[in-house]
Formats: sequence, structure tokens, C-alpha cells
Amino acid sequence: MTDLLDFVSLSLLPPWCWRVAADWLRQGDPPDSVLRRLLAACARNEPDRSSAARSLAADAIGRAESASIAAIPWSDAAYPVALTTVADPPPVLWTRGRVAALSAPAVAIVGSRAASPYALAVAEQLAGDLAACGLVIVSGLARGVDSAAHRGAIAAGGVTVAVLGSGVDVVYPPEHASLANAIDQDGAVISELVPGTSPQPWFFPLRNRIISGLSRAVVVIEAGEKSGSLITARCALDQGRDVLAVPGNVLSGRNRGAHGLLRDGAKIVESADDILEELGMARRTGGAVGADDGRAMPPGLAPAPDPVLDCLVPGEACDLDAISGRSGLPSPRLLPRLFELELQGLVRRVGGGRFVRVHRTC
Amino acid sequence: MTDLLDFVSLSLLPPWCWRVAADWLRQGDPPDSVLRRLLAACARNEPDRSSAARSLAADAIGRAESASIAAIPWSDAAYPVALTTVADPPPVLWTRGRVAALSAPAVAIVGSRAASPYALAVAEQLAGDLAACGLVIVSGLARGVDSAAHRGAIAAGGVTVAVLGSGVDVVYPPEHASLANAIDQDGAVISELVPGTSPQPWFFPLRNRIISGLSRAVVVIEAGEKSGSLITARCALDQGRDVLAVPGNVLSGRNRGAHGLLRDGAKIVESADDILEELGMARRTGGAVGADDGRAMPPGLAPAPDPVLDCLVPGEACDLDAISGRSGLPSPRLLPRLFELELQGLVRRVGGGRFVRVHRTC
Repeated sequence: MTDLLDFVSLSLLPPWCWRVAADWLRQGDPPDSVLRRLLAACARNEPDRSSAARSLAADAIGRAESASIAAIPWSDAAYPVALTTVADPPPVLWTRGRVAALSAPAVAIVGSRAASPYALAVAEQLAGDLAACGLVIVSGLARGVDSAAHRGAIAAGGVTVAVLGSGVDVVYPPEHASLANAIDQDGAVISELVPGTSPQPWFFPLRNRIISGLSRAVVVIEAGEKSGSLITARCALDQGRDVLAVPGNVLSGRNRGAHGLLRDGAKIVESADDILEELGMARRTGGAVGADDGRAMPPGLAPAPDPVLDCLVPGEACDLDAISGRSGLPSPRLLPRLFELELQGLVRRVGGGRFVRVHRTC
Repeated sequence: MTDLLDFVSLSLLPPWCWRVAADWLRQGDPPDSVLRRLLAACARNEPDRSSAARSLAADAIGRAESASIAAIPWSDAAYPVALTTVADPPPVLWTRGRVAALSAPAVAIVGSRAASPYALAVAEQLAGDLAACGLVIVSGLARGVDSAAHRGAIAAGGVTVAVLGSGVDVVYPPEHASLANAIDQDGAVISELVPGTSPQPWFFPLRNRIISGLSRAVVVIEAGEKSGSLITARCALDQGRDVLAVPGNVLSGRNRGAHGLLRDGAKIVESADDILEELGMARRTGGAVGADDGRAMPPGLAPAPDPVLDCLVPGEACDLDAISGRSGLPSPRLLPRLFELELQGLVRRVGGGRFVRVHRTC
């Protein structure tokens, strides 16, 4: 991957650069050019900044290689398609564990660090039930609800992804090192921060956009009025993801944030079925226990309808304006989605800036 | 009250007659004529039915008098105006305690009989907070949430009304006899059933329409999937009352009914402020404790806007069609409301079936 050095260099720029970088990359500007333009804007009086950034990036890549950490730049086919649709995708995802876990349909479960036994039980149960239906559970490896969600998914034999606010080799909180190792087995521990980066308070709010960006929905459990989970919920809304919340005790004050989300229109969650329904996924129920024929349907998910895909007729090439008109989506939102569909093999780019839906019989 | 015997006789007819009776009474048919027409329809082959009904009614009135139970027929000025707006108002309200308690703005609090400590605590707190703001708390004197709501109102020095599914002299459950006595002090214990009537399961769903009908809003706390409180909530919706619900634990199964109401659009309640806000009532907060001037505002409520009153200009007589057009309310809903406003002295009936708003300076 020849681009990797450029993307890692881009990731070392200040966070406000990432949105601009993403815009330019989406317009077709190659990463080395984006890096050059941004460095020129950021550091006019520091001509050595480019080589310094590349040198730091090369160090990070070397450290990652020796620690078996995969570096997945934005341009890589393994980069999760869901994240390509957000305004400020991380230029690189540093990944421990199974990279494929990042591209399966996912739901984020987040909530209080100082969680009540109730919140821990709900997180574990919801995560287990959703994971058993084939959904990846995304969370932040924090104490409380986050780690209960990871554990619930693992206990159900499912897949879970932890997004850190530090390098993936600097697990925080430290007592979750063995949980991180367990997550690695079938899932992944990821970060946008170069390996070796220590956790800092300002990394966590930024990290939250990755948790929601990777997911089709964010479920909030026991968030107080100033909970970081509300940042994740806000990111989810900005990114067009569903936000759902679990209700709880109104006397403890622990649920004010979650109840505030419900007041603002978040869907109420009592069980995994509520989440599956919101995602337009029908849980295929198995045959009744003890049914005569014994043929239980395997757990699985029906795909959600897609407004972009639905307005494309297989074999008919459409330009952006036509797709925008039919789907009701403006071009800035349409392009990332088309890119995602292209990566999924559902749409193909043809001449004249037009797109065609790929006809598949399966 | 010469009508009383007729109204009590009407109340002894089967429940399905009450809606018809109310329609005819609203059309101006006097109660003795309504009774005669209904008896003719109900009991064509029983010519003695009329005298039998009047004889039972006279007995009931006698029993009530000797037990200091007030009988308030539909035509009485003391009959609660809120109840006149429902489709099937009780022909008579048998009342212990203070009759005036029935005409103050009220909120119903209902919920599980086998309530958790959480539900009991929430009921008591909400009832106390609302009662302290001058709202009457209406409930059903049942075990669990109902009795906690009555107790909360009394503990806050407020007023509460219990609506029974038996005669007001047959308190059920029996262990709530002393609570009923306490309610009588500033509030009232009422029933549509003649004194001496034993509780029967089919009385309680009918009783629930009175709980909601007396109230501007119904708050449901910890209702399971088949809770009787959901019947009260449905009555409230039919009667155009607000329905609100308190969230709780999603693992216990105790809150499925309440959460179902939230899913269907009921407002979420965390505190009394949520209820006051839904009613369009601003809670007037007092001065801070220890404030220098010591002038705390008395607790009180600002009146909610009224769509019928708002479309009437003082001094301008309007007929039904004009009021219906301006307020957007169809005549069947308009008439009971105009009757209510008339009783409150806010609207006056003038010639030609027209109404005029009374100008008041206070």
C-alpha cells in the first residue's frame, strides 16, 4: 500500500484537518497532494513539516508492524465502508484482531462508566442477543456499560469491536487488557491514534464519532445529563444513524441523559427486538422448541432497504443529478454512499460520471 | 333536587344505557323522560320496571342520607365539569368528603397493584409534588401505586380523590379503610355505584373512565402488559386527556405496558415538572431558600390556553357553527366543553343558540 505513509502523515495533522482532507480525497485528490496542501495551509513557516510528518509516520508504521498491528488507510478495500460515509473519517485505522469484523453490520452500545448493576445486566443481555443475530457490537472498552457490552457479545459467541481513545497497544483502563485480548479473537480493537499514543481526555469525544460511524445504530444505556454517551448519540444523529435508548429508574438521576434522548425522539429499547425492528431487520425466529420437524431457521438478518440502490434500475446508467433527484439525497451525501455501494459490488461506475446498478441473482 | 330520583334510577340501568342517556340529556330531554324512554327500550315486557327502579333508587338515597353520603346528579352545579365532557358520564356521583374537591384541576396517577418499591416511591413523590402545586390527585384506592399516590398527596398537605369500584361505604381493599377516612378530610371518596354495592371485577374497568374523566392527564407508573392502568390510559385517550408514563426497569417485565405507552407517543415523566409542562402549566418557583427579601412566590399554576375560549371575543355572540369553524372542534365535542365553560362562569348562553364569552377583569 504505497499510500499508507501519506495517510498516516495525514492522521498526524490536527483533527480539524480531517474533514477537509476527507473532502479533498473524495474529490479525487491523491493523498500526497492532500497532505502537501494541508501542510502548506497549517505550517507555512515550517518547510520541514512535511518530512517531519513522514518521518513520524514511518516510525509509527514500523512500530505497528513489529507489534502485528494492521494499518488500514482510507483507500484500502478493508477500510470499513460505513466509516467512509461520515464527514471526518479517520485517515487510518490501526487494528488488532480480525480486520473483517469492521465491515459487518454493527450496532454500538454505550453508556455509563459508573454503571449500576441494572445497566450492566441490560448491556450484557442486549449485546448478547444482537451478537447472536449476527450483528457486531461496537463500544469503547470503558469501564461499566462499554465493557459489559463487549463481554455480552463474546459470551454469546459473537463478534465485538472496541474503539480506543489511545493507541491499540496502550489499553485503557489497564485492567481491560485481557478483555481486549478476548475481543481480538473474533473481533477487533481499533484506534485512529498511532500505536504508542497515551490516552488523553480530548481523544475520547473524537473517538466517539468512530463508534457511531462504524454502526448502523447507537444504543444508549444509563447516560447521565453530562455523559460522554450523549456525544456519541449526537455524532450518530449527525451521521444519519439511528439513536435508541434504554429507560430506567427516574429517581436515581442516572438516566437523565437517556430519558432526554427518548424525549427528543430516540426509540425506546426494552429488548434486542426493538433494535432489530428499528434497523428494518426482521429477526427470523426458529421453530418452536420441540417442534416436530426440528428444522429451526438459522438466526439471520434481512437487509434494510436502501434509498440510493432502490432508485437505480439494473443496467440503466444514471448520472449524479438523476440519482439525487430520484433518491432525494443531495450530492455531498450521495457520493460517499455510492462509493460504499461500489465497494460492496452493488454499483459500478461507468463513463461520463454515471453509475449503474449491478444485477445480482443471489 | 327533584331530579335526583330519576338520575339514581338511570344509574341503576345497565352501563350501555349511560352513553345514550347522556346523549339525550345533552339534547335537553329531561331525566324522567330519558328514564322512561330507556326503560321502554330495555324492558318492554316488564311494565313494573319503572316503579321498581324508582323504589330501589329511593332506598339508595335514604341509605346515603343516613350515612352522610352526598348524591350529586349530572344536573347538579357541584357535578364535576370535567366529567360532563366524557361520552358516558355517571348519572350520579355518590360522594364522601368534600364535594368541592371534584371540581379543581386534577391529575390521575395509576399503576400496578403489586408495585415495586421503586413504583411506590415514584408515585408518592409525583403525587406530593403535584399536590403541592395545587393539583388534585385522582386514583383508585387500590393496593400499590394507587394508594401510594393518595398517601403522597396527603403527606404534602394536598387534596386527593379516590374513585371506587364499589359503593363508597364498602371500601375495597378493606385495609384501606383508614386511608379512605384520611382522604375524606380534604378530598373525597366517590363512586357511581349506589351505597352498599359490593366490589365486582367488572366494576373496575368502568370505574377507570371516571378516574381519567375527572383528570386533565393520566400518569401511568409500572403497568405490565395486561395492567388495568392501560384501560385507564385508553379511556383518557378516548376522552382527549393527556397520557404520560414513567419509565423503569426493562428486565423485570413490570413496565412493558408503560413503555408501550411511551412507544405510542405518551410523554415520558421523570418528575412533576414534566407533567406540569404537558398541561401547559408553568410551576412558579419560589425565591431561593435564604433569599434576602424572604418573599417567596406562593406555589400556583398558570391556566392552560383553551381553544374554545380563545376563539370567542367577549361581548360577541357566536352560534355553534361559527365556534366550530374557529376552534376546529366538531359540535359533539364542542357542546360539552361549552357547558363546562358555562358552569365555570366563563361563557354565557344567549338567544338563538348562541354563546358569548363573559368578560372578567381578574
